[in-house]
Amino acid sequence: MGSRLVVVGGGAAGMSAASAARRTDPALEIVVLEASGYAAYGLCGIPYYLAGSVTSADDLVAYPPTFFRDRRRIDLRLHTSVSHIDPERRHVTVSQDGHERRLGYGSLIVTTGGRPVRPPLPGLDDERVFTIRTLEDAISLRCLLDAGRVGSVLVVGGGYIGLEMAEALAERGAAVTVVEAENQVMPNLDSPVAALVEQEVRRRGVDLRLRTMLHGAERIGDQLAVRVGTQRLVVDAVVLATGVRAASSLAADVGAKTDDTGALLVDSAMRTSLPDVFAAGDCVAPHHRVLGRPAFVPLGPAANKMGRVAGIAAAGGSATFPGVVGTAVVKVFDLAVARTGLTLAEALAEGLPAVATDALGKSRAKYYPGSGPVHVRLVHTNDGRLLGAQVVGVGDGVAKRIDVVAVALQAGLSVADLVAADLSYAPPYAPVYEPVLLAAQAADALATQPDSPVAA
Amino acid sequence: MGSRLVVVGGGAAGMSAASAARRTDPALEIVVLEASGYAAYGLCGIPYYLAGSVTSADDLVAYPPTFFRDRRRIDLRLHTSVSHIDPERRHVTVSQDGHERRLGYGSLIVTTGGRPVRPPLPGLDDERVFTIRTLEDAISLRCLLDAGRVGSVLVVGGGYIGLEMAEALAERGAAVTVVEAENQVMPNLDSPVAALVEQEVRRRGVDLRLRTMLHGAERIGDQLAVRVGTQRLVVDAVVLATGVRAASSLAADVGAKTDDTGALLVDSAMRTSLPDVFAAGDCVAPHHRVLGRPAFVPLGPAANKMGRVAGIAAAGGSATFPGVVGTAVVKVFDLAVARTGLTLAEALAEGLPAVATDALGKSRAKYYPGSGPVHVRLVHTNDGRLLGAQVVGVGDGVAKRIDVVAVALQAGLSVADLVAADLSYAPPYAPVYEPVLLAAQAADALATQPDSPVAA
Repeated sequence: MGSRLVVVGGGAAGMSAASAARRTDPALEIVVLEASGYAAYGLCGIPYYLAGSVTSADDLVAYPPTFFRDRRRIDLRLHTSVSHIDPERRHVTVSQDGHERRLGYGSLIVTTGGRPVRPPLPGLDDERVFTIRTLEDAISLRCLLDAGRVGSVLVVGGGYIGLEMAEALAERGAAVTVVEAENQVMPNLDSPVAALVEQEVRRRGVDLRLRTMLHGAERIGDQLAVRVGTQRLVVDAVVLATGVRAASSLAADVGAKTDDTGALLVDSAMRTSLPDVFAAGDCVAPHHRVLGRPAFVPLGPAANKMGRVAGIAAAGGSATFPGVVGTAVVKVFDLAVARTGLTLAEALAEGLPAVATDALGKSRAKYYPGSGPVHVRLVHTNDGRLLGAQVVGVGDGVAKRIDVVAVALQAGLSVADLVAADLSYAPPYAPVYEPVLLAAQAADALATQPDSPVAA
Repeated sequence: MGSRLVVVGGGAAGMSAASAARRTDPALEIVVLEASGYAAYGLCGIPYYLAGSVTSADDLVAYPPTFFRDRRRIDLRLHTSVSHIDPERRHVTVSQDGHERRLGYGSLIVTTGGRPVRPPLPGLDDERVFTIRTLEDAISLRCLLDAGRVGSVLVVGGGYIGLEMAEALAERGAAVTVVEAENQVMPNLDSPVAALVEQEVRRRGVDLRLRTMLHGAERIGDQLAVRVGTQRLVVDAVVLATGVRAASSLAADVGAKTDDTGALLVDSAMRTSLPDVFAAGDCVAPHHRVLGRPAFVPLGPAANKMGRVAGIAAAGGSATFPGVVGTAVVKVFDLAVARTGLTLAEALAEGLPAVATDALGKSRAKYYPGSGPVHVRLVHTNDGRLLGAQVVGVGDGVAKRIDVVAVALQAGLSVADLVAADLSYAPPYAPVYEPVLLAAQAADALATQPDSPVAA
């Protein structure tokens, strides 16, 4: 019993943890308990499955359950949930097929992920109201779409998930309304950058309403009457995309320490404050390298990396997770929208003497077909410390441009260092005046003339 | 006279230098002498101009001459060549309209660029034999193409310029033969990576002949009979792409120090060994950060950066050029082919204890439309020091993936650091198992198990 590793949750973090544990200790008994009917699925692929560009939900599954069972000797149990951890007696309470029983562990990895925030409003407990957080949710909505029964839809929340959903539903021909309580979309971008995204969303026919709240929904036959702001709309479906919190209660309820957002706190080997209990993925607030403290930034690649470290450490190996810098990219219609590090708003809220420098460049040489605008915002201190970046523009190069700044942040490079970066150039892929370098030059000029007026 | 800045050459480096000098000293007299009829042109755009995707040669010019004359008060003189520098009396000998005269300088910037290597073979001094190094060369070849007079062509040299030319000519419908003396294309790639490029070139119908030399050409009416290897071919044109050397003789002939390839040696402010004579661009061997010494790597972005530093320094300002890591990307039909740092062959030739780790990944999530293979090779020491990378695959993301490694090299990150890089992920732009990180993980596993057998 002492050598059994139990993993709670079979998503990206959980299956990465189990796989890394297997590589670390070929003899270890490894059990993964997953509440849904799917493991190793890509939540990030759901918008493309709904839009129809991905045919089957099975395509979103990285490996089938048999792969883990047969090839990696991982005892993966689907439709199996965990209701309690007893950290003193080292067992979990497992529910499967209506039966509860106890399962002992030598070490435990909690990868319970995120849970959608559901506004406490009347009428939202309806099968036409969706929170897209599991493949099962997505399959239900896709069935409605395939049946031609979603002519109009309300998306609640203008964050990146809300906008991905808006795009997917618009591509299926639905009339889409998005309501966002704040005065900009994507709260993790600075407002001038978010304005570029809003422009694109509206250009593509989405009815975007800022500073507008949902007040409730009411079923009328096959439709829902919703109250948004001062208006009443009738739609075929509602999608809630009002944020995600760490699903940490299983561990937190028995004493695991959390940050003020409720996400689990861990050390660099992904150990929680409970003995032999590790955690990884969206239920964790990992170390943020720019902030220098834990932060809740639930994103897939970090979930995989944290899972790997937790798996190695829980199996007795040695590994550390050095933290995140908060890099993310999302496709919003024809724009790629990316960020890393801190926004200006985040940096100022942190008390840092931050400014932002914007540059507008091209994705390719101006004469090369398909060249389009790329907007780069660098966030930095007055004396040239790099704090973050936002990049919005056309083409696959945006995602990788943000990665250039992500690596620079990880390495502690200054804006002056970034000016000297030896980045690749060829007319089909970049202009000779690379937008990231244009922004770095402008930021460096600001930093070396600290008395000049600074536009933020 | 003492305050006049003279720039020899109006290409990327020269015009960057002149512009930076103007910003540094608004009162300085600045004269740029350019032998051809164009300034600030993009040599890298020539293949796309020949292919027809860029309509006019004027599109390759970043700014027209009037922009420099009127907006930047730079005395740009086209069709004006320099035959001699007198570093003691501080003047250059200028030829314009058949007249020679002297022009004094307070400081001088040499941006004479590269010169194509012409094999010393019979019959190559023919108007149907092209070395594509000036816009004028390109315009002549394009006229022949537009007139439908290039049904078949021989490209001599399988380096990146030869392959870009092969693609451009094939897109115009020409039957293209490429001969390369070595046993692989692109000598700046390791052979397993070059093999992927060869496959693509052949797949697209180019008759690629390795280990094959050109022995000479002979005019037969409107065609050329060429001897390649043991065969005789008859073609409508020959394009020589047999390498580039630094066009350094103007400065070297009067004592400026060069490296063993003939490229000018400079300090970090781009000063040559001659007093008040600076140099920038393809005529220079800049500091190579990975090699830790000067190296001749003639590429556009570095030319711009060096020009900017030379211009600031020559105008009395303060700037330094910290060097290159040798980053480059080229499009070869449907593949993007990129490199940075050292290849395995280069690292071994340098005496470094280097190995290579290869990983094959995807450009996008495997389920996302348009996802294609991306091959990543990392070159590193046995103990995990990063030395370089090569990336070959589909899509714009390849160019920016190499930039991730370029920044990591600049910052001195290890392969273990690269494993932890917080790179962006979304299904349209990257798979959750990012190919660069897959390669870094494999390289790190090698580095932490130094006794295991190592495949290079």
